[in-house]
Amino acid sequence: MKKDYWFTEKPLPGTKFDGYFKIKVKKKIASFKTPFQRGEVLDTFGYGRVLVLDGIIQLSEKDEFIYHEMIAHLPLFYHSNPEKILIIGGGDGGVLKEVLKHPLKEAYLVEIDKKVIEISKKYLPFVSKKAFDDKRAKIFIEDGLKFVKKYKNFFDVIIVDCTDPGGPSLSLFSRKFYQDIFSALKKNGIMITQSGTFYYQSFHIKKIFKTLKKIFPFVKIHRAANPCFEEAEFSFILASKKINLNKRDFLKIKSRFKKIKLRTEYYSPEIHLASGILPKIYEIK
Amino acid sequence: MKKDYWFTEKPLPGTKFDGYFKIKVKKKIASFKTPFQRGEVLDTFGYGRVLVLDGIIQLSEKDEFIYHEMIAHLPLFYHSNPEKILIIGGGDGGVLKEVLKHPLKEAYLVEIDKKVIEISKKYLPFVSKKAFDDKRAKIFIEDGLKFVKKYKNFFDVIIVDCTDPGGPSLSLFSRKFYQDIFSALKKNGIMITQSGTFYYQSFHIKKIFKTLKKIFPFVKIHRAANPCFEEAEFSFILASKKINLNKRDFLKIKSRFKKIKLRTEYYSPEIHLASGILPKIYEIK
Repeated sequence: MKKDYWFTEKPLPGTKFDGYFKIKVKKKIASFKTPFQRGEVLDTFGYGRVLVLDGIIQLSEKDEFIYHEMIAHLPLFYHSNPEKILIIGGGDGGVLKEVLKHPLKEAYLVEIDKKVIEISKKYLPFVSKKAFDDKRAKIFIEDGLKFVKKYKNFFDVIIVDCTDPGGPSLSLFSRKFYQDIFSALKKNGIMITQSGTFYYQSFHIKKIFKTLKKIFPFVKIHRAANPCFEEAEFSFILASKKINLNKRDFLKIKSRFKKIKLRTEYYSPEIHLASGILPKIYEIK
Repeated sequence: MKKDYWFTEKPLPGTKFDGYFKIKVKKKIASFKTPFQRGEVLDTFGYGRVLVLDGIIQLSEKDEFIYHEMIAHLPLFYHSNPEKILIIGGGDGGVLKEVLKHPLKEAYLVEIDKKVIEISKKYLPFVSKKAFDDKRAKIFIEDGLKFVKKYKNFFDVIIVDCTDPGGPSLSLFSRKFYQDIFSALKKNGIMITQSGTFYYQSFHIKKIFKTLKKIFPFVKIHRAANPCFEEAEFSFILASKKINLNKRDFLKIKSRFKKIKLRTEYYSPEIHLASGILPKIYEIK
């Protein structure tokens, strides 16, 4: 390896901007290629171990908890009694670890690329913290697109934890897929998807928001800043069949947060509220 | 100029991390050197024109309004009737432009380096939008450290808009300076300072917070994400002599926001509240 080795992130898919995220690498830990993607695990200065898929940083040791806590706890706290959860993607196990902090019955995880799970268990054990071994976890190596079609009125919460819109997981942002999610959810069901960053991926955020609005009565954007994501301020879009996402009962969220003794570093009932307030420039009408 | 020209930001002052912010440059517009600092104005892909001082990005055409709106409107709305404002630093005119949107009597601006004002007026006119020509603006080319000593019980709000902690403006984060600010403020007075980013500059945030706590009864951290700042999520620290920053009267802020017909792209009364809620990891006890 060269003495001075920098990893430079690719431009975000679907954006025209020239990539600018640059991170100094201590050591390349692993690299792999599967029918679905290529990937690498790097040990870096500043961010610790980093998982890269198709040239885009997916998570870092130093701040993975921000993204994982938010995408897991937002829908689980909007819902009043989540028992059956489906995670689509999320092979690193980070979302699984977070949802299992709740008193669930079952958490299904469907990952298309089993190599991501293997690599994550081996080189990024701090992400899943043995969540894969939990008895409530059911792991499927399948295409999430097909998997979700098999279920009707079954899940309380569905979490779409996939790679960026514009890239190979484009179909996980399609109207057809969201319709299948709608059907797979129970009548109080809620879904969440990551939807990229606000500045460079605003086109995608708008598109996802508008697509979901055609299917679900309630759609809401939340945000959180992840230092290792290009441009940092990152969006999540929630969609709900019946629970009004704009009438949040803060005290209820707070009391459940306390009751289940949730341990988090970023998410809190207060952050739940604050993260749903958007600056004017990011609002979508 | 090379065909493929990238500007790479220096590591943030006082941090050990190897710099990683990288931005593709279309054209170098200007560069200068003064007794205080060296600087350049770059035209870039993605961010438009960018002002760099001593290797650190100060503002970009695309997102300057986020930082400027927040550092100006947070203290002006915590205060109930701001009439006399002092801006220390801020030679680009961005904060001046924002404070002059309020029905003030006078806005003083004291900048140590007159070249920053000249360069900004000439190459970055979109930042100040002729705020320097406003009759209520009083511009002084002086050391803010000395300037503030001349006033007692005089300003309603003092805004410290300087370069990063750890760099040459270190004395603008000192206890002595904050004591002079305390004296220069009226009894309802409020100050605000930028205090760097949460992840890499957390050491500075803690230090500034604790120093201010020794002088002012109320100290509070707010946050906003600026895409062009390394690591994006950025902190501001407010300190108040009498007004309790933790008992915000939201409806009062909202009605004044409406009354003065404030036009903003990022700041809003809702963002005022949300930006004062911190994730657990960023809280300081």
